[in-house]
Amino acid sequence: MLTVGIDIGGTKIAGGVVDPDGVIIEKTRVDTPKDPDLLAEAVSDMVRHFAAHREIGAVGVAAAGFIDRDRATVIHAPNIAWQNEPLRAKLESRIGMPVTIENDANAAGWAEYRFGAGRGYRDIVMLTMGTGVGGAVIVNGEMYRGGHGVAGELGHMRFIRDGLPCGCGQRGCLEQYASGRALQREANAIADGGGIGRALAELRAEKGAIPGPAISRLVLANDPGAREALGRVATALGEACGGFQAVLDPELFVIGGGVAQLGEDLLTPMRAAYRTSLPGYGKRPVAEFVIAALVNDAGIIGVADLAAGSV
Amino acid sequence: MLTVGIDIGGTKIAGGVVDPDGVIIEKTRVDTPKDPDLLAEAVSDMVRHFAAHREIGAVGVAAAGFIDRDRATVIHAPNIAWQNEPLRAKLESRIGMPVTIENDANAAGWAEYRFGAGRGYRDIVMLTMGTGVGGAVIVNGEMYRGGHGVAGELGHMRFIRDGLPCGCGQRGCLEQYASGRALQREANAIADGGGIGRALAELRAEKGAIPGPAISRLVLANDPGAREALGRVATALGEACGGFQAVLDPELFVIGGGVAQLGEDLLTPMRAAYRTSLPGYGKRPVAEFVIAALVNDAGIIGVADLAAGSV
Amino acid sequence: MLTVGIDIGGTKIAGGVVDPDGVIIEKTRVDTPKDPDLLAEAVSDMVRHFAAHREIGAVGVAAAGFIDRDRATVIHAPNIAWQNEPLRAKLESRIGMPVTIENDANAAGWAEYRFGAGRGYRDIVMLTMGTGVGGAVIVNGEMYRGGHGVAGELGHMRFIRDGLPCGCGQRGCLEQYASGRALQREANAIADGGGIGRALAELRAEKGAIPGPAISRLVLANDPGAREALGRVATALGEACGGFQAVLDPELFVIGGGVAQLGEDLLTPMRAAYRTSLPGYGKRPVAEFVIAALVNDAGIIGVADLAAGSV
Amino acid sequence: MLTVGIDIGGTKIAGGVVDPDGVIIEKTRVDTPKDPDLLAEAVSDMVRHFAAHREIGAVGVAAAGFIDRDRATVIHAPNIAWQNEPLRAKLESRIGMPVTIENDANAAGWAEYRFGAGRGYRDIVMLTMGTGVGGAVIVNGEMYRGGHGVAGELGHMRFIRDGLPCGCGQRGCLEQYASGRALQREANAIADGGGIGRALAELRAEKGAIPGPAISRLVLANDPGAREALGRVATALGEACGGFQAVLDPELFVIGGGVAQLGEDLLTPMRAAYRTSLPGYGKRPVAEFVIAALVNDAGIIGVADLAAGSV
Repeated sequence: MLTVGIDIGGTKIAGGVVDPDGVIIEKTRVDTPKDPDLLAEAVSDMVRHFAAHREIGAVGVAAAGFIDRDRATVIHAPNIAWQNEPLRAKLESRIGMPVTIENDANAAGWAEYRFGAGRGYRDIVMLTMGTGVGGAVIVNGEMYRGGHGVAGELGHMRFIRDGLPCGCGQRGCLEQYASGRALQREANAIADGGGIGRALAELRAEKGAIPGPAISRLVLANDPGAREALGRVATALGEACGGFQAVLDPELFVIGGGVAQLGEDLLTPMRAAYRTSLPGYGKRPVAEFVIAALVNDAGIIGVADLAAGSV
Repeated sequence: MLTVGIDIGGTKIAGGVVDPDGVIIEKTRVDTPKDPDLLAEAVSDMVRHFAAHREIGAVGVAAAGFIDRDRATVIHAPNIAWQNEPLRAKLESRIGMPVTIENDANAAGWAEYRFGAGRGYRDIVMLTMGTGVGGAVIVNGEMYRGGHGVAGELGHMRFIRDGLPCGCGQRGCLEQYASGRALQREANAIADGGGIGRALAELRAEKGAIPGPAISRLVLANDPGAREALGRVATALGEACGGFQAVLDPELFVIGGGVAQLGEDLLTPMRAAYRTSLPGYGKRPVAEFVIAALVNDAGIIGVADLAAGSV
Repeated sequence: MLTVGIDIGGTKIAGGVVDPDGVIIEKTRVDTPKDPDLLAEAVSDMVRHFAAHREIGAVGVAAAGFIDRDRATVIHAPNIAWQNEPLRAKLESRIGMPVTIENDANAAGWAEYRFGAGRGYRDIVMLTMGTGVGGAVIVNGEMYRGGHGVAGELGHMRFIRDGLPCGCGQRGCLEQYASGRALQREANAIADGGGIGRALAELRAEKGAIPGPAISRLVLANDPGAREALGRVATALGEACGGFQAVLDPELFVIGGGVAQLGEDLLTPMRAAYRTSLPGYGKRPVAEFVIAALVNDAGIIGVADLAAGSV
Repeated sequence: MLTVGIDIGGTKIAGGVVDPDGVIIEKTRVDTPKDPDLLAEAVSDMVRHFAAHREIGAVGVAAAGFIDRDRATVIHAPNIAWQNEPLRAKLESRIGMPVTIENDANAAGWAEYRFGAGRGYRDIVMLTMGTGVGGAVIVNGEMYRGGHGVAGELGHMRFIRDGLPCGCGQRGCLEQYASGRALQREANAIADGGGIGRALAELRAEKGAIPGPAISRLVLANDPGAREALGRVATALGEACGGFQAVLDPELFVIGGGVAQLGEDLLTPMRAAYRTSLPGYGKRPVAEFVIAALVNDAGIIGVADLAAGSV
């Protein structure tokens, strides 16, 4: 059975037809309308487009936000004006096919579990280092969704009591210290400090800001300032993984998002911080760390597969 | 079917015969031998004693420590000289009955879920405020055990980066700020500070220390120093629950252990701290807080029921 | 000898003629021009106005910012476009009188030492809880100005490692946790949390924000949410004073700024936090805490007196 | 004039005759008696011994602890059973010479200011990284002693709120993160973590512990684990110096104690952390960092010179 996976981002809606092996056989994208009804229409159009020439069995839709336990309603979304939006019903009535809604980080984690870096494991934690830090928890081969459907918000675990303010209304959330944006903040601080920050400061003077990809290039070129910035966010994430191990006990951490392209340069300091932050280290089994495999398509693939599993 | 539940503590082994409704129909206890073989013998004797006059279907054994995913082996225990101890095999060969091993905090959480304060819920988190802070997570009606069997160590989630040292080898673990022992530490600090600490200081001068139950009595007598000490640990635990909500999304927190006898005096400041520490508060479903119902017998009942469920 | 004291704020310039007993015998104020030259002219005009009918011996000018050790140059100011501004020379050439420049928090602290709540003490620390937290240190009867003239920035002592961002470029500065603005932030967080925050939430719904004076009124009316908010900032400031005692060892802390109008409601929790945060408490002399006496005029009086002392 | 300087440590009393250029022309040491009267006698004997063949004008005595403002009384000492001990009077009546008592860290800081690494500066802060972290502040060429004589306890400035417990009764004091002992603790944690900690772990297995000098040797041999441990304490101290700059505004930080023998290996990460922790960095004058010059004799020289200055 083919299914459609659709990933609704703040600016773009990306969709694809996914086969049972998690392969995208056709893909498209459009701008995200601001109005919820126009957005539902845009998603429906995309499905109709795919369904015009292929048999589609179900549709999965991934979006940032709190999705209820029944995968039917968007309780709240950060980027789109949804509030207890009955998105599944709205879409099913337009499309005439079963629809599954899932949080985008969960969808990406599921894709890695089924077809990516997490294949062969039953218990994984995925962390996506993007603008924020997304999280997904797979327990014994099932998506951990919690009592209300909104579990796995790992980026909002508190890292520093009374720490940096977060868009979620809290202070000190992990994503303020371990995201791609945190990497930029650290790079700026290091640029301000002179010394090893010289290359970062020059970059900023030239571009007016320090773009994430430029930090990565400096890391690969062994610039000490950029490596220090990366070391700080890697350490923060690795320390947090020590705590996630205590609570969730995964076999594997899969690290995704733009920063994860740095591969071992990211994982080496992460693992070191994890080891020195794990309660009972040396007396208990530990987890492995790998980089995500599916990159940008994980949301589409994961939610399409969840849709397939729900029919 | 009747089953036996046995709770091995650092100083005492308590055991009971438990019926399918979670009622203990007979109970006994003995001192805990230091030697692992003598300990296995003591447990076996206790089972033989119960089995002499009743038909027992299975045996559950709860102990502090890391238990492997198969509930067969004690990977490590803090109080007993076990290291990768094949406890299930050892006991089954002596007793001739199926044996299930479980972490004691998990067993207590399971008992609350099945027969206590968590009955009727599917997704609960239990936190036990004793010497340390024990944790158990029930997900969709199943015990969350993780990839290696050692999930749910909620008391070792980090509360303060670079904080107080913990017996687990880490710094800043929640149990250093939210356990019964933390309550005593705060009471001592308040006694040192004069002012509202006067009653605590007098108590300490008289007894040489500030015992936990005496703090509870002062709380009930509205002593401002004791209430401040309780407020600090309640706030710490409530704040931590905000983070557990983000990660685990339970419907219910069940709070057990000696300090929990204070009931609403504990829960009121906990709930206040939870609300102001929950990412996305106001935009998402929240959990309820209740005091545990089964108190000292939860470990016996829980592990007996898990044993019943495994045969 | 009469001297003129002038306090340059971000929006207003206030000036007065001060007699040797620290009494303001005439006072005026004008808007603060944005342009540095117009600003110098406005200050000069104010002095000429006073000098037209009285004999003035010297002029003191207080402003927020880093003033150099010679009290001649404004190294940097947060609100005015000065950068290494030779303000003393500029003003002396226009006015034809000796001019002394001083940091505004230092001037206020000096006024309290000479004529206010700190009279009779030799070693005091003043903390002003306004938008930020200002600091001044008087050592053995002299203003502590440091090696470059910019000592006493007590509001920028770090309170939380990796904490809230501060306008100074750092994270976790004390003023983010113990200023009037911090009081408003805490009040907002408590309003968000429901429960004891109800009155604060109603106030915010009605006014669109929670003004500082309204929090004070609620504190005086014994509202539990407002008292909790005050307790948090008072505790933060009191804890910080424990550290200032270790480093600076004053005989007296003078607390000024709008929040200080709350008097004992502020000082009681501050003292409690100080006692439990003072290294070696019980084995060393401690400081007293009092509310500032001179309120809004402290800057004018202090800098006028410093000007008198420099001729 | 020659003076005698005596440095009373927990195990040894070291004394010397010091000339006006800060040169020790004769030196001796004896064990520290436990009994306060025997200790006073031992100090007196040492002075009599020196005075037998030289003309001595005054005596200075340095000891760990709180010394009162008049440099006459030991308010409290951590290692010796003094409590409000009138040490000056006791010694003067035995010796018949003017005696000055000073805190040992203050004495060492004074020696560096007068004859060591701080010569030519007026405003310095000295930090000694030994078992703890000692501090001394020289302001405008004078020892900063505070309102009660006990200022400059820089090692007890709080570094982490709710952090590691300290012998002073507080939590989170700087000396728990930036002393020689903290270096050993970090080295142990890194040894536990495997990976870069291998050499440290081998050292510990061989010696039963990780001695401070051995860490230094590994740092010099470029061992990554030892360098990481040093980096952590250097970063902590450098960050704290950012705060000391805000409060005390020295021209120079002098770093002493055993760890300081590592020189630039210590100072380089310290300076980096200082720059990124200094409020208003880039808009204000900054301090320099140097290694102390007088090493073990600083206490003797400093207190001898203070004694000379007081007659």
